[in-house]
Amino acid sequence: MTGSADEALAELEARIRASEFHGWMGIELLELGRRAVEVALDVEDRHTNLVGHLHGGMIATVADSATGLAMRTMLEPGRDHVTVQLDLHFLAATRGARIIGRGRVVRAGRRIGYAEADVVDEEGRLVARAAATFLLTDGS
Amino acid sequence: MTGSADEALAELEARIRASEFHGWMGIELLELGRRAVEVALDVEDRHTNLVGHLHGGMIATVADSATGLAMRTMLEPGRDHVTVQLDLHFLAATRGARIIGRGRVVRAGRRIGYAEADVVDEEGRLVARAAATFLLTDGS
Amino acid sequence: MTGSADEALAELEARIRASEFHGWMGIELLELGRRAVEVALDVEDRHTNLVGHLHGGMIATVADSATGLAMRTMLEPGRDHVTVQLDLHFLAATRGARIIGRGRVVRAGRRIGYAEADVVDEEGRLVARAAATFLLTDGS
Amino acid sequence: MTGSADEALAELEARIRASEFHGWMGIELLELGRRAVEVALDVEDRHTNLVGHLHGGMIATVADSATGLAMRTMLEPGRDHVTVQLDLHFLAATRGARIIGRGRVVRAGRRIGYAEADVVDEEGRLVARAAATFLLTDGS
Repeated sequence: MTGSADEALAELEARIRASEFHGWMGIELLELGRRAVEVALDVEDRHTNLVGHLHGGMIATVADSATGLAMRTMLEPGRDHVTVQLDLHFLAATRGARIIGRGRVVRAGRRIGYAEADVVDEEGRLVARAAATFLLTDGS
Repeated sequence: MTGSADEALAELEARIRASEFHGWMGIELLELGRRAVEVALDVEDRHTNLVGHLHGGMIATVADSATGLAMRTMLEPGRDHVTVQLDLHFLAATRGARIIGRGRVVRAGRRIGYAEADVVDEEGRLVARAAATFLLTDGS
Repeated sequence: MTGSADEALAELEARIRASEFHGWMGIELLELGRRAVEVALDVEDRHTNLVGHLHGGMIATVADSATGLAMRTMLEPGRDHVTVQLDLHFLAATRGARIIGRGRVVRAGRRIGYAEADVVDEEGRLVARAAATFLLTDGS
Repeated sequence: MTGSADEALAELEARIRASEFHGWMGIELLELGRRAVEVALDVEDRHTNLVGHLHGGMIATVADSATGLAMRTMLEPGRDHVTVQLDLHFLAATRGARIIGRGRVVRAGRRIGYAEADVVDEEGRLVARAAATFLLTDGS
């Protein structure tokens, strides 16, 4: 494990960019800082539900990624996080071709972490609010 | 709009089976009854997160589909539902190659609906519990 | 029903101050503005749980009041709100003798409202975060 | 700490019955079994909100007690639980003079517990559904 916090962030960023899940989903990492993360999804036809809106599962996935990655930036080397709970409030049907998920850690204790995310569209309109609880452990 | 409830269910089923979203995601409709719905996801490598577990966003998507489709089976012709809120409790990391989402409507009022879902793995082990709130409208 | 928004707020404030529930609970209204509300609870022995901490039900009650009253300040005369859903994240065991609930409306549509609350202690430490969904109606 | 599970339950029951919080609130313990707990609240005028319905905070308190006490019945001697998160779905305005909260543990792991509760009125009508997440520790 590399020594500095910057190296740990760089390593995490490389792993996210290489992630098959994010590539397949169409989720792009915009910014990865300590405590706060930004991801984006370019909305395609395949992401929409039966009535033509962005599927709630896609919004949930963006929120889950944004909160989970933000939490991960706070962990010491060798520590792990598991998402215990996620709640989502859908505030507007999306307009435009892109959504952005902004996750930030509100509390990182020894055993429990808590993070929130805004999901906004291109015009900055609030599409959803999310909150997530994490169990933090000393690794497997 | 077709007359009978059976025809409405059959029409809904055909639309789900033709859905680009479900095809792309890998979500399959197992059963669509009035009030209760079952969907499945065959877990592939692309569905997993950085540590090799099924991504929380996939579980959220299965739960969102299971609750939303269950709600839709309860609507009179011309009525619509919008998901207002979804909460998820992740209870176990998934084992096996398939998860099943079982959604059922607990309450369908004139303006508000409420549904829950179990997400289980192949051995019937509970992977997640979900609850969703819907706004029910007279359509657009 | 009085004409101006100020008069409606003053009338609401008078009703809250006269409320038997708030008096019995020990909840005090600190500030009632359009969209944002502040309430306080002076913690007494009767408010604590088996291990001596402020009971989660009290924190929930403060959060429910703060979000619900904030929502009420946004309603046109004759309109009503019903709380559909409330979620709470408990972030710290309380210290000190007083908690403050700060509710604010994030979204007020025609049929659905969404509000959040911070619950803090005397030192401004975040004790809990809450979010609530409301059904908004034209009254009974 | 007493040896047997029965004695631990009896001791917990005695502490709940002597609790100033439950006495002041008007919450009565109906049944305390391993994994499942039932509590009741006789609704008085002081428990109602500005429009005459049972206050959401009271329903939250009953749900918090029912889930938290159920969780406590599962703990080995010397172990502790802390409520991390609680979510509530309000499904009907209450009728009648009494509500009952039925809590049951769905999952009790080494570090995380999960419990749910139904809140029903005298006629068995579902008033609310609740879910709670707990951090389980080896005590202070």
